[in-house]
Amino acid sequence: MIIGVVTGSVIASQHTQNMTGLPLRVVQRVDPTGSISDSYLVAVDVLGAAPGEYVLIASGSTARQTTMTDGKPIDAIIIGIIDTWQIDGKARYEKTSASMTST
Amino acid sequence: MIIGVVTGSVIASQHTQNMTGLPLRVVQRVDPTGSISDSYLVAVDVLGAAPGEYVLIASGSTARQTTMTDGKPIDAIIIGIIDTWQIDGKARYEKTSASMTST
Amino acid sequence: MIIGVVTGSVIASQHTQNMTGLPLRVVQRVDPTGSISDSYLVAVDVLGAAPGEYVLIASGSTARQTTMTDGKPIDAIIIGIIDTWQIDGKARYEKTSASMTST
Amino acid sequence: MIIGVVTGSVIASQHTQNMTGLPLRVVQRVDPTGSISDSYLVAVDVLGAAPGEYVLIASGSTARQTTMTDGKPIDAIIIGIIDTWQIDGKARYEKTSASMTST
Amino acid sequence: MIIGVVTGSVIASQHTQNMTGLPLRVVQRVDPTGSISDSYLVAVDVLGAAPGEYVLIASGSTARQTTMTDGKPIDAIIIGIIDTWQIDGKARYEKTSASMTST
Repeated sequence: MIIGVVTGSVIASQHTQNMTGLPLRVVQRVDPTGSISDSYLVAVDVLGAAPGEYVLIASGSTARQTTMTDGKPIDAIIIGIIDTWQIDGKARYEKTSASMTST
Repeated sequence: MIIGVVTGSVIASQHTQNMTGLPLRVVQRVDPTGSISDSYLVAVDVLGAAPGEYVLIASGSTARQTTMTDGKPIDAIIIGIIDTWQIDGKARYEKTSASMTST
Repeated sequence: MIIGVVTGSVIASQHTQNMTGLPLRVVQRVDPTGSISDSYLVAVDVLGAAPGEYVLIASGSTARQTTMTDGKPIDAIIIGIIDTWQIDGKARYEKTSASMTST
Repeated sequence: MIIGVVTGSVIASQHTQNMTGLPLRVVQRVDPTGSISDSYLVAVDVLGAAPGEYVLIASGSTARQTTMTDGKPIDAIIIGIIDTWQIDGKARYEKTSASMTST
Repeated sequence: MIIGVVTGSVIASQHTQNMTGLPLRVVQRVDPTGSISDSYLVAVDVLGAAPGEYVLIASGSTARQTTMTDGKPIDAIIIGIIDTWQIDGKARYEKTSASMTST
């Protein structure tokens, strides 16, 4: 999995079968120093992640290992909303109301 | 998934089994700032995406999760034609007739 | 899929089960401007692609979606020999006898 | 597989189904010269790897090939804790108590 | 598949289920000009490749398509020991006793 921050969303009304109702978020990858990179994925969000929240992304066939995504043409999914993330014993991020931005 | 723009097409009359009639588009990756990169994929298009349209691409085994691609040697597919895409609350792209180019 | 040009071949007489008789080609990736990069894959060739020909490569589990590669430890395959490839309405490549080199 | 060193951990109390109780470690990739890069993965740890330990990471559908991860939306797993790792006949790393740091 | 040269090995006595007895080699990627890069994988070796030998590596779910690796948490395998490898009609490598180094 990789760590990312939710920065946007995508609407695609014309799509392949079974995609109706799956929210699509733009998630930008975060590196181990905590800075946000230009690398991104569009991931299905079944957890209701808010903009600005840090999330865990799983990719590939793994994205289909939930009842909501099984058999769907999906290759990236938000599998967790991060509470805290630490490296070398120091928190890189802790979820607070301040860490969320509004859309 | 990644976001790309349809910039070309490929014809390959000599191909492996079951590939007949699957349109193949060249799709160039778009980065979060909205600029088009040199990175590309050739993706199967079952939606009829026009040149210049922004699309969502799924890769790997995921590309076979539609009735039209099931069991075929395909590793990239256009799963949606994007209406709008926003980052930090601002639209990076909105589909209009002007955003399409003719072939 | 990606576009590549066949530039070489590999012989590996000592190999894992079921690999006997599968031709292995070195294919170098071509970028959207048409130039050949140093990035390459070794792909199974069930189509008889000649050196210098432009081909479509599928990777991962997709490479096993043909009767000749099913169940074999193969992660890249030539799925098509390209006739023509265009970007922005202009041909980047058209297959002619001149585009082939001899080995 | 790739070689990495355990440098951190992630807590995500809000997650997709079946993820309860799977420890998540931040693992930074180690290159062949032995230096630690900024490239990282978040991997499930079913072995109890300590911070500072060198580990083997498997990715993709492979991460679901254990009884603890089968059917779960997991795309990276620690499959081994490295005792020793050598290149060109010289040890790049040998596990000792000194190679571990405390959290 | 990619071409690599066997440069090292890894011992991990503490590992996930079913991994007992699978030799693990460090394989560094070779580019089309024949030079060895810093990019590497740790691959299962069921063929007994010697240090210094050039090999073909398959990755992902493909690594489980042999009887020795089926169902195991393995994402890279040596599928062939290369005899010869040519580009543009010229040999980049030919296996000889001189091309092997001792450990």
